[in-house]
Amino acid sequence: MVKKKTTFNISKGSNFSEWYSEILNKAEIVDLRYGVKGFIVIRPWGARIIEKMYKIYESALRATGHLPSFFPLVIPEENFKKEANHVKGFAPEVFWLENKRGEERLALRPTSETAFYQMYNLWIRSYRDLPLKLYQRANVFRYETKATRPLIRSREIFWIEAHDAFATKKEAEEQVQEDIEMTESVMHQIFGVPFIPMKRPTWDKFPGAEYTIGSDSILPDGKVIQQPSTHLLGQNFSKSFDVKFTDEKEKENYVWQTCYGPAISRILASVISIHGDDFGLVLPFTISPIQVVIVPIIKSNSPNKIDERIEDIRFKLFSENIEVEVDYSEKRPGEKFFFWEMKGVPFRIEIGEEEIKSGKAIVFIRDTKEKIKVDLKNLSEDLKNFGVEYDVRLRQRADEFFSKSIVNCKDKDSIKKSLDFGHIARFDFCSVEKDGAKCAEYIEKELQARVMGTRADKKEKSSGKCSFCNKKANEVVYAGKSY
Amino acid sequence: MVKKKTTFNISKGSNFSEWYSEILNKAEIVDLRYGVKGFIVIRPWGARIIEKMYKIYESALRATGHLPSFFPLVIPEENFKKEANHVKGFAPEVFWLENKRGEERLALRPTSETAFYQMYNLWIRSYRDLPLKLYQRANVFRYETKATRPLIRSREIFWIEAHDAFATKKEAEEQVQEDIEMTESVMHQIFGVPFIPMKRPTWDKFPGAEYTIGSDSILPDGKVIQQPSTHLLGQNFSKSFDVKFTDEKEKENYVWQTCYGPAISRILASVISIHGDDFGLVLPFTISPIQVVIVPIIKSNSPNKIDERIEDIRFKLFSENIEVEVDYSEKRPGEKFFFWEMKGVPFRIEIGEEEIKSGKAIVFIRDTKEKIKVDLKNLSEDLKNFGVEYDVRLRQRADEFFSKSIVNCKDKDSIKKSLDFGHIARFDFCSVEKDGAKCAEYIEKELQARVMGTRADKKEKSSGKCSFCNKKANEVVYAGKSY
Repeated sequence: MVKKKTTFNISKGSNFSEWYSEILNKAEIVDLRYGVKGFIVIRPWGARIIEKMYKIYESALRATGHLPSFFPLVIPEENFKKEANHVKGFAPEVFWLENKRGEERLALRPTSETAFYQMYNLWIRSYRDLPLKLYQRANVFRYETKATRPLIRSREIFWIEAHDAFATKKEAEEQVQEDIEMTESVMHQIFGVPFIPMKRPTWDKFPGAEYTIGSDSILPDGKVIQQPSTHLLGQNFSKSFDVKFTDEKEKENYVWQTCYGPAISRILASVISIHGDDFGLVLPFTISPIQVVIVPIIKSNSPNKIDERIEDIRFKLFSENIEVEVDYSEKRPGEKFFFWEMKGVPFRIEIGEEEIKSGKAIVFIRDTKEKIKVDLKNLSEDLKNFGVEYDVRLRQRADEFFSKSIVNCKDKDSIKKSLDFGHIARFDFCSVEKDGAKCAEYIEKELQARVMGTRADKKEKSSGKCSFCNKKANEVVYAGKSY
Repeated sequence: MVKKKTTFNISKGSNFSEWYSEILNKAEIVDLRYGVKGFIVIRPWGARIIEKMYKIYESALRATGHLPSFFPLVIPEENFKKEANHVKGFAPEVFWLENKRGEERLALRPTSETAFYQMYNLWIRSYRDLPLKLYQRANVFRYETKATRPLIRSREIFWIEAHDAFATKKEAEEQVQEDIEMTESVMHQIFGVPFIPMKRPTWDKFPGAEYTIGSDSILPDGKVIQQPSTHLLGQNFSKSFDVKFTDEKEKENYVWQTCYGPAISRILASVISIHGDDFGLVLPFTISPIQVVIVPIIKSNSPNKIDERIEDIRFKLFSENIEVEVDYSEKRPGEKFFFWEMKGVPFRIEIGEEEIKSGKAIVFIRDTKEKIKVDLKNLSEDLKNFGVEYDVRLRQRADEFFSKSIVNCKDKDSIKKSLDFGHIARFDFCSVEKDGAKCAEYIEKELQARVMGTRADKKEKSSGKCSFCNKKANEVVYAGKSY
């Protein structure tokens, strides 16, 4: 047998790229050896986190009036082509099925607007059918030609897509706001991943949308990572798919649409990267597959008696909805400590004869590495409280890192410096409409960075000039390097 | 607006086929108008049932030591071809991706043995790595050339596949038994779908398996429907994929493997068909998206006061983990009754001023159509008890129908008659090894029925002769017509 090394010690700060690859492998989140570009295997530790993330996200969608549905994996070529900008944007990324039997050519969904909306055409007749708010949990497939990175840029993406239809533009715009709030309440508040909502420049919106608001977060190496986007589709798709309703005055109108797409696998990449440290994963209490691990310390010749008491404690925690596991493996306690630290389990408790006798034990806290003495009688209550504090702490630490990453810049030089240093540059910019595209191209080519857009959560006023074309700056934009 | 007709009245007994199509449509379980053969849309009412079924099945898998994982949708052609019988069996059913860029040809998984086992080759080294028991929740894709039927035979199947590896054949055989027990404890005990576990004749086993045990159930029209199968793969795949381990004596061996595949969409087809009646769906309490619907009866001019009390009741039930909905729609109460009856919701409660005043209300029970007076104080407790009794009743009714469907037959004539009548014929048969294939072919061609196999849960002894070749009968087999 090849003995597995359980210790982990790579500096996340100085070598994020190696840290990321190694921890995915060591913690058995994924396996990259499947042998097909952009497709990876999600191992149980990763799958269990993903399941918890789906559950939380789907609950949030249900709470805002969305219902689940499942649409086919395949989209007929004819549908796919119905919205001109959409097909132009997505066509290069599409996987097509072989089509030998004279049947229609089929695409694997890269996203499902063109699957959903032909059915909305059939389902929506009257204002009474509105709003229609459906989502599906499904993987999507995109033929990435750039270098792929596990969970960050893949050809198979674990995601959710919500497709909503309304009677008025006002409601659709409110939905866009609700989507941003959901990103805030789930991804930021629960998973601890900070972001800024960015209204994308017109050249970077979703193909077929009126406008797009992306959520940009940052990785420890300073690269920007796009998280859930929400799109005001307006009436572009409803006109292409003829989705009409009769209003209260018997007048026919096209519906107003939005869509929202949280990529669970990509959010997991942020969770791992943002919270982890040099000793491995640090998983939020809420989504850790195991929240508490008990390491039995067997010193005497009466292991059974201890096992029994430990089983009592395990059962007590389990019945209080705490995910607990006892590590009965043959490893030495020290090895177990390193192993569960590396796996990111929030709390570890050592229990031996002494702890049973005194009724007190030490809880080791993964992020701060503190050791706290607790009374075994109040264990589940204490752990739940620790869990809440723990998640708040992770989020605040991430927020602090994030807010330090945003730097105000005055000129080309300081923009370049900030970007090279792994920061997000905030600066005055000519325009996010068509006439700003040229300056954005310059930034892309010369500074290898992308104009992320303007704040969607507040109006920021610019007073100066654009550092690239010297014209009047109409906007304050943010730019960053990304994968 | 097109007014939706909510009443439903089709005789399931005399016209099952029409009943099935109509109820899928009327109850908004699925929509068949997607426009691609074998691919359908699962609407919220169907998706919510499917989600509950997945949750229960996955919990059962977890309880037997399986862990979740996610494997890629695509399988390289090279892998797929590694087990000779497997590729022979599945190749005609495979969807392939277009392959224009000189990359390897990729199949959409029709099942994932050849995806899992190349990784088992990497993950399994020592007896300490065994048993390895993983499953994934995933859709699979099969190019059906026969007529498709929604949820019963589709090109996209909602399923779970479990892939287990062991050090010994004995453990693998025990796993096969555990799989059968899981079909019993989940599909039969919880979902109320009866079955007999059948060891398939050698000509009908899973491509690449040593033997296959299928679970055969029956639909109301007498057609047999195959439900979860479990397969003893033996060492066929471990030899093809070189999955070896070192045992405690440092000797290298190939692992022994099993796989198990419950198709959730197909089980849903049985649930709908077996329990439904002429008025629509009858959903088991455990998996109904809504378990109790409250219909407010507003007679006076003080609706708000009633609404408030109803909301109290709703909240009480909700907090007791009962899925409850209040139908505040503008329909007349009678329409609401028909609607929720058709949707299969187990319990309906009408609450108006009278009920609030007296503290008593009537619970309408979907399957028996009984009306039971309950005390609103004990409502959640009563409903939970009713729910348990309700599910037992559905199961027993299904069991009774099923056991009456199995008929002992003495000769060709009685076999033909039973099959034509929509029964499963049980009779003496020459052999389920190669030399019985000819008689099985005769049955297929002349009687349009399939030899399902021999009982896997008990040994049945044959004393007579085979009615088809007149040779000594070695087996008691079952045969039925199927879709």
